[in-house]
Amino acid sequence: MITRDDCLARDAADRLAPLRAHFAMAGADQQGIIYLDGNSLGALPAATAARVAAVVEHEWGVGLIRSWNTAGWIDLGHRIADKIGLLIGAARGDVTIADSTSVNLYKMLSAAIAISVPQGRSPSSARRRILSERSNFPTDLYIAESLAQAHGFELVLADADDIPALLDHRVAVLMLTHVNYRTGRMHDMTDLTRAAHEAGALVVWDLAHSAGAVPVDLHGADADFAVGCGYKYLNGGPGAPAFAWAHPRHVAWMDRENWRQPLSGWLGHAAPFEFTPDYRPGQGMSRFICGTPPMLSLAALECGVDTVLAAEPYGGMAAIRDKSIALTDLFIALVESRCAGHRLTLVTPREANDRGSQASFAHATGGYPIMQALIARGVIGDFRAPDILRFGVTPLYTRFVDVWDAVDHLEKVMTTGEWREPRFNVRTVVT
Amino acid sequence: MITRDDCLARDAADRLAPLRAHFAMAGADQQGIIYLDGNSLGALPAATAARVAAVVEHEWGVGLIRSWNTAGWIDLGHRIADKIGLLIGAARGDVTIADSTSVNLYKMLSAAIAISVPQGRSPSSARRRILSERSNFPTDLYIAESLAQAHGFELVLADADDIPALLDHRVAVLMLTHVNYRTGRMHDMTDLTRAAHEAGALVVWDLAHSAGAVPVDLHGADADFAVGCGYKYLNGGPGAPAFAWAHPRHVAWMDRENWRQPLSGWLGHAAPFEFTPDYRPGQGMSRFICGTPPMLSLAALECGVDTVLAAEPYGGMAAIRDKSIALTDLFIALVESRCAGHRLTLVTPREANDRGSQASFAHATGGYPIMQALIARGVIGDFRAPDILRFGVTPLYTRFVDVWDAVDHLEKVMTTGEWREPRFNVRTVVT
Repeated sequence: MITRDDCLARDAADRLAPLRAHFAMAGADQQGIIYLDGNSLGALPAATAARVAAVVEHEWGVGLIRSWNTAGWIDLGHRIADKIGLLIGAARGDVTIADSTSVNLYKMLSAAIAISVPQGRSPSSARRRILSERSNFPTDLYIAESLAQAHGFELVLADADDIPALLDHRVAVLMLTHVNYRTGRMHDMTDLTRAAHEAGALVVWDLAHSAGAVPVDLHGADADFAVGCGYKYLNGGPGAPAFAWAHPRHVAWMDRENWRQPLSGWLGHAAPFEFTPDYRPGQGMSRFICGTPPMLSLAALECGVDTVLAAEPYGGMAAIRDKSIALTDLFIALVESRCAGHRLTLVTPREANDRGSQASFAHATGGYPIMQALIARGVIGDFRAPDILRFGVTPLYTRFVDVWDAVDHLEKVMTTGEWREPRFNVRTVVT
Repeated sequence: MITRDDCLARDAADRLAPLRAHFAMAGADQQGIIYLDGNSLGALPAATAARVAAVVEHEWGVGLIRSWNTAGWIDLGHRIADKIGLLIGAARGDVTIADSTSVNLYKMLSAAIAISVPQGRSPSSARRRILSERSNFPTDLYIAESLAQAHGFELVLADADDIPALLDHRVAVLMLTHVNYRTGRMHDMTDLTRAAHEAGALVVWDLAHSAGAVPVDLHGADADFAVGCGYKYLNGGPGAPAFAWAHPRHVAWMDRENWRQPLSGWLGHAAPFEFTPDYRPGQGMSRFICGTPPMLSLAALECGVDTVLAAEPYGGMAAIRDKSIALTDLFIALVESRCAGHRLTLVTPREANDRGSQASFAHATGGYPIMQALIARGVIGDFRAPDILRFGVTPLYTRFVDVWDAVDHLEKVMTTGEWREPRFNVRTVVT
């Protein structure tokens, strides 16, 4: 039986433990919060408040419009993009920061469609499928649906296990989220990319639940396109700008063809400050920028990315991954031992290699109220319809004892039956 | 001859003078800055730093994911949208806040195209033109170019004076920026909308240089669609989220037809937290939301909009407009009297009814270095290629004496010839 003291001992021995000081957890700690929702909104880095205050009070307040030059606002996105590149196996200059994940997916999927069609990858011109997973995050499916309609493509949805068999001459683009937002199941990026390429298809990876959570090597996997989110494991703050990546071979094609992405805004122009009436796309990934970025949120994103890069001296993403597996293993073991008989079914793969940095359990009737009862006790995970309790672990700040305490509360919620109290079934807008 | 004392007297008598205290100008004032670039980036409101700090430190830092409910993050955009609605003649619920102006224009122009085509407004099916002004802000033209290509439309550009004559049976959409970013020329929204409607076309207005600067009555003008910017005269901070509006008759059509905008992200879904694989557009304007909004920048936007609403007890937009005209009249009069012979040519309409809240002067050879010399002296306007010196006035914080001092510096820059110093011709990225 694993004891709380065992967990405290593991925290004491944890080489990543010093990284928790890079977060402003005091307020939440004082409230007794155990935060297991960094996969929805990463915690606040310790550096962010001062950095954002400086942007507001000095750069905007005093520097005013000059700060585009003097405070380097115009380059900030590029700088952060290169930092994110270090975490996902992208070369310098190959990542761009802009807009939201949804908007970036629209751009990258547009690129994938454009490359699929004119290069005549299909001898029969019948390569008009976008293949994805039925349980992909909805926004990915909605955006793909939109582009499929616009381009006369067909969006085909399948269960994860059926994807490889569906990769055939009809598939133009395979679009997957690397780590499933509900179950935490992680695809093998290298294998699926290879299978897609063998079938003549391109692959777009959504790294929303991967960047900063698991090691990603886009170049090593020979991926084609990727997008990702700044406010989950990158700790960039609510609604932080998102990122996008394209393999240099595709960027070279775009440059050669002078290809323009559909959201051809002024900041993605080759020379935005010439204010010419005709659009000339910027070279490389800069063409994927559209309008002026939200600078306060962008500045906060950098602080968030820096918290992940701060792990470098401690072993970087590999060490983060090791601890993530240890935390999720512990979570699963504790729930299955202490909450046995309470009809909590593990939906996250038991095999660590097949999951991201979360543990999810289904409960047929109580998913929603059980999570509300936990939140009332200060254990913050989230509920994902129809029946899933989702617990994310962020090795930068999640401790082994947090996992122990969370499961302790969960056991109490289940054994006391307090989750059946009507107050826990009051639906709030966001859960 | 107008003296500096005359200007001080006008400031002393100015009923809007108390509103300057709603801005954090102390830092810029200490540096002797005269800020005449609120049309590019509005000044920092006094309330913003504390509000953003509260969002960062308390709502994000302590509230964490709960703040979507407990701090009202999910409703914040709607609340700000309704406040902006008060400034542009929009009813409650008819404005939405999202993304950037460019991205919103993509959505609204897509809607205008969708409504033009299926309703068969043209008997000959030949109504496939988007008509705009050649000197429109480039991003508007780039986005229109993109959509024209995608839909088999043609983007036709004309000089402002030629627009009415080009409104014929071939025009599906007239897309104009209400106040020209370079010259400050303002279109008559009511007249042009009527002319477009008589020709069977829809009108999309870009209010980037209008919202918060001049009275706008979208409903009164019977406009069809509008977009606008949060970080100019609305003082929302660098890259603040943008807004969009559609006339209720078009929103009713969208609802009836179940029309989806192309950027169909999850937050614009009818029930985003059901996470269903099929997209159902949200009712009304909520369909135009795409991804998660950048919350820090969004919170700052509200403080900015509040500075404009703070003028209500002092006469509101009408009083702002009166002072704006007085300030620009003064600017023009002073430049023309004190800088006569220096080849500065007024490009802003002399007739106040025909201009927004700026005064622009062309200088054939010195536009760029003259502005740099002014900026070195603390007078911040901006340069717009190829030859325009642009000075925006924001009646909420621009004083008559600021105008006097700015022109005093301009006269010195011209008479001393200091603008010819090589250091003022060093091009920076953003000017």
